[in-house]
Amino acid sequence: MRGKSISSERFSSILSPIREELRQVEARMGQALITDEEPLTAILRGLFISGGKRLRPALTILASKFRRSEASKVVALAAAVEMLHTATLVHDDMVDNSIMRRGNPTLNAAWDDGVVVLVGDYLFARSAALSAETENPRIISLFAKTLMLISSSELREALNIQKPNQKDYYWRISNKTASLFAAATEGGALLSEAVEEEVQALRSYGYDLGMAFQIMDDILDFTGDEEELGKPIGSDLRQGVITLPVLYFLEEDPDWGSVERILKGGEEREEHIHSLVTRVESSGAIRSSQAEAQGFTDKAKEALSVLPANEYRQVMLELADYLMVRRS
Amino acid sequence: MRGKSISSERFSSILSPIREELRQVEARMGQALITDEEPLTAILRGLFISGGKRLRPALTILASKFRRSEASKVVALAAAVEMLHTATLVHDDMVDNSIMRRGNPTLNAAWDDGVVVLVGDYLFARSAALSAETENPRIISLFAKTLMLISSSELREALNIQKPNQKDYYWRISNKTASLFAAATEGGALLSEAVEEEVQALRSYGYDLGMAFQIMDDILDFTGDEEELGKPIGSDLRQGVITLPVLYFLEEDPDWGSVERILKGGEEREEHIHSLVTRVESSGAIRSSQAEAQGFTDKAKEALSVLPANEYRQVMLELADYLMVRRS
Repeated sequence: MRGKSISSERFSSILSPIREELRQVEARMGQALITDEEPLTAILRGLFISGGKRLRPALTILASKFRRSEASKVVALAAAVEMLHTATLVHDDMVDNSIMRRGNPTLNAAWDDGVVVLVGDYLFARSAALSAETENPRIISLFAKTLMLISSSELREALNIQKPNQKDYYWRISNKTASLFAAATEGGALLSEAVEEEVQALRSYGYDLGMAFQIMDDILDFTGDEEELGKPIGSDLRQGVITLPVLYFLEEDPDWGSVERILKGGEEREEHIHSLVTRVESSGAIRSSQAEAQGFTDKAKEALSVLPANEYRQVMLELADYLMVRRS
Repeated sequence: MRGKSISSERFSSILSPIREELRQVEARMGQALITDEEPLTAILRGLFISGGKRLRPALTILASKFRRSEASKVVALAAAVEMLHTATLVHDDMVDNSIMRRGNPTLNAAWDDGVVVLVGDYLFARSAALSAETENPRIISLFAKTLMLISSSELREALNIQKPNQKDYYWRISNKTASLFAAATEGGALLSEAVEEEVQALRSYGYDLGMAFQIMDDILDFTGDEEELGKPIGSDLRQGVITLPVLYFLEEDPDWGSVERILKGGEEREEHIHSLVTRVESSGAIRSSQAEAQGFTDKAKEALSVLPANEYRQVMLELADYLMVRRS
């Protein structure tokens, strides 16, 4: 618990220059989640109270800060980004039969699949309506295409098309995670009077930050603390998802049998998962994966060099460094 | 089978003035459904080949025909409307565990829920991207809000909030069906140089036509031919959905027990459904429901009076009449 609170204090402190805007995003989301149906409003509110870092809306706000922008549209877009993210999590948790997220039971732990699907759909629609408030067709199109990338990468996983190799791993995290980080920063930039070079720089920052973020997430699934993470260690393996640490581990020690045993399931599956987690954790695979994440982080920070050296650029640099050392 | 083919011949003949535009919509959808993943492309193609009337895209095209419009944007929007409709059907069939639609097995008869959810999500996203091609923020916002209405009405059903009374019935079909018909015509009108009065008239036409269409659908679930419909009679009761014919029947004969027996399930459920279907079919409830549908049809036709009396207005009038006598 100590680790968690230190970690989130540092995060809040980095984002303090945009604290007021983040508060407005919370208010905008709270308002957008009121429906005519009390049970639905309660479900939606529960989803958003259970939290999350609000990292993606923070990126939208930060990216809008380099040139003049209309505050209410930035807030609407930031809220739309977080809602789109939450909608994809709701459907993902159902697809993966996950019962815990961020230390709380998932929606599908309490409701049947039909309700979960429709709540996700409602959030997609709500998010699209918020993004339409920007009245910017390029942003709306960017949003729609991001959702296409996310759902097609999830489908590739569900249809078992992905191959356990680095090329496929990067394709997947690019579509699943980095695409939305990139849309968050590009969208924020487009709402300001940023020139195209700046828009592209902010998009690149978001994209590479997203790649680093996902690799770190996949590392934490081996090295993290269950209480801090709010979910069990080895969740990816348990869901049959092969991430970068496992791919590096297999380069060192091509023991495919131990992975296949887990993918096939069977009686001693939990023991096999536990054993593989321990072996990956103590191998060089973690360090190699961290080096990859660091590469993306460096690239993200580098992209910011074309932007004015103001307070917000400093926040984005610190944020990139923080995400490399986060524990949850 | 004879009934079906006569019925669809009449439908095609009514729509012959926009045959070329409908062909372009098919081509645009075919193109939009190509993905990088062969299995996904095959699934999507299967969904659209299995057909449907393409009634909603026809409405978008017709509504765009009174003033000048950009053909490629109309085609994109018409394709978006049909895809949004298909996406909601995919999720609905999963939520309802339906295994047949339009005489074909549903997606969830062949794939697990995870795949079905993600295919629906992909179609929502594809549809949103197509609607963004109109570059018209009002249309995009209309689209997003329509999806909010559809999913919240489905949620009301899934959360069992709806009460079996006429007020709730009309609320539900308004959100579930009429909203998308209205968006189809309003969107088409907005893409033309129609003045606001004409936009509102075309929206009203779509809305009331949608109400009539859904009531007729609910009647056909009692009076239709299983082969023509491509699904079993009594499907709504089987899914616990109380429609207008049942509500009128209960006014005549307040035998709630026979409905509750079906909703509760139990051993002789199919016999109870069969018996109630027969009683509703031979009661005055069908005629009363038809009268309601006719009222909406008359209102839809009336709305068109402010529009120029051209060939397309004639098609819309004939279409409204045809939908009252359709058998599937």
